Amino acid sequence: MPRSEFQFLRDLKDHFNLSRIGDDCAVFPKDESHDYLITSDMLVEGIDFKLEWTRPNFIGHKALAVSISDVAAMGGNAVYSLVSLAVPEKLWNDPFLDTFYEGYSGLARKFETELVGGDISRTDGPFTIDSTIIGIVNKGKAVLRSGANPGDSIYVTGPLGGAAGGLKLLESGTVFSGDLESWKSGLLIRQLTPFPANLNSFDSLPTAMIDISDGFSSDLDHICKASGVGARIYADKIPVERRLRGLQLSTEEKLNLALHGGEDFELLFTADTAKVSEYDGFLFEPIGEITDRTGKIEIVTDEDIEPLDIGGFSHF
Amino acid sequence: MPRSEFQFLRDLKDHFNLSRIGDDCAVFPKDESHDYLITSDMLVEGIDFKLEWTRPNFIGHKALAVSISDVAAMGGNAVYSLVSLAVPEKLWNDPFLDTFYEGYSGLARKFETELVGGDISRTDGPFTIDSTIIGIVNKGKAVLRSGANPGDSIYVTGPLGGAAGGLKLLESGTVFSGDLESWKSGLLIRQLTPFPANLNSFDSLPTAMIDISDGFSSDLDHICKASGVGARIYADKIPVERRLRGLQLSTEEKLNLALHGGEDFELLFTADTAKVSEYDGFLFEPIGEITDRTGKIEIVTDEDIEPLDIGGFSHF
Repeated sequence: MPRSEFQFLRDLKDHFNLSRIGDDCAVFPKDESHDYLITSDMLVEGIDFKLEWTRPNFIGHKALAVSISDVAAMGGNAVYSLVSLAVPEKLWNDPFLDTFYEGYSGLARKFETELVGGDISRTDGPFTIDSTIIGIVNKGKAVLRSGANPGDSIYVTGPLGGAAGGLKLLESGTVFSGDLESWKSGLLIRQLTPFPANLNSFDSLPTAMIDISDGFSSDLDHICKASGVGARIYADKIPVERRLRGLQLSTEEKLNLALHGGEDFELLFTADTAKVSEYDGFLFEPIGEITDRTGKIEIVTDEDIEPLDIGGFSHF
Repeated sequence: MPRSEFQFLRDLKDHFNLSRIGDDCAVFPKDESHDYLITSDMLVEGIDFKLEWTRPNFIGHKALAVSISDVAAMGGNAVYSLVSLAVPEKLWNDPFLDTFYEGYSGLARKFETELVGGDISRTDGPFTIDSTIIGIVNKGKAVLRSGANPGDSIYVTGPLGGAAGGLKLLESGTVFSGDLESWKSGLLIRQLTPFPANLNSFDSLPTAMIDISDGFSSDLDHICKASGVGARIYADKIPVERRLRGLQLSTEEKLNLALHGGEDFELLFTADTAKVSEYDGFLFEPIGEITDRTGKIEIVTDEDIEPLDIGGFSHF
């Protein structure tokens, strides 16, 4: 049986002794006061987006957003970017590529991220984008996945399941336009033009952090594995995206979208519960806690405590 | 008419005021004594390589080599790398990907370049690789394309046309194996597993530099455009790859492969002729000189002086 992409990366890391792989970004030294971060994300038409569901500027925005989110997940700020494109002949026209770059550079300006390089090639296949970001972080302060300690509380920066709800709308034939009801456009925006969260004003708070790209359950599992800990979360604390109400799903279905849907690009982080109170104006409510039961992730519902299914997105 | 990739990048650079784009790498600050360099190269199956002409380890080698060459073209040393892959289902198997990484990491070890990140995605299209390298260079010493001055001599680090000769062999059905005559395997190696040149032991010599990827004529044109100068080269000084003899081409055909063939990954550079003599053991012979006739590139042959055709590879 072929390996999953996660297993493949673990094998590669072991085989070639790649100590810097395994977090959202690699860390490398800048100067005495700062480190740099770097991350790349490959987005493929037909797999990660469909042309008929989105717009060229949305694709440009999202390609940058997913990488900025990786930098935010390490506690850094995005400063430089590169974007490499493999472009099919049918899209090699001025409006498409110009509009792509408008979406890309619109978000880049908001984050004061400078496009410094990249490449363009032709392809006989789908439009393929590799987005690379260099971020900056205070020396030694990059937040890793491996820093969670038993007793830490678990937080997320915003509502979950919205991007998955947007995907459901797209799958059912809804097309984004300015005329949609606001809950629909809200969900579609979560899916098509995610806005990366950041915690930079709380920079010594998180003990471990990851951005929610694969899905909350899968990303919490990444933290637990890297930290050698377990976790217990509370179903009634999960911040389920309110706009999901419009989709007429059961409570359980909505919770499942929030737990496993992925692509919300909120940050999932752990913090020392005692330190949280020092942060005046800290708005996040804990949704669970880290335990010493290595590898075990449980969810507490009204009736029961049960193992949490790990069900995020896997390419293979 | 759609724009060429070069025109597209120039438009993009102007439109978004991207001052760091236009060299083989972008330069960004490290500390008081060094700068970093960064470059990305997109390689697409069917366009940049064909699976039936090469081997997975050769693809891994070449993906890294082309980016190391960009760093060398700025006078830097490659220190970190990232590789992002879009993998079709048929290649998602252990031997293919492991062998790809063996080729990649074999070259990485030779250059002491550490793989620190990347991404893997599925694709319904061709195998697509984006190779990113971070290099390091002494502060303010990155060699740009724009530094050539009238009167400078023009040099290349090694023979030209070998990679194009290898491509001809592949097109005519030759398959790489250990049993080939040495001129054939030599040409195929130039095409399939290029070894990046470097000039690091002559680090304050080049005034302008580029690596020969598009083709000598095209890359010399890039230097002339960036520097606002012209150039005159001498046909009888062009170091035509000797192994091309085996192909039974006319002298003119061989010269054309050397001038326009591309992918040799030698360095093309300019230097102050007077300073060259200070470098004991400097082995390169000038093949021409930079002139003040902006935009004009001429070639001197036995009979004549004529404008040099600019004929490198363009994706569109």
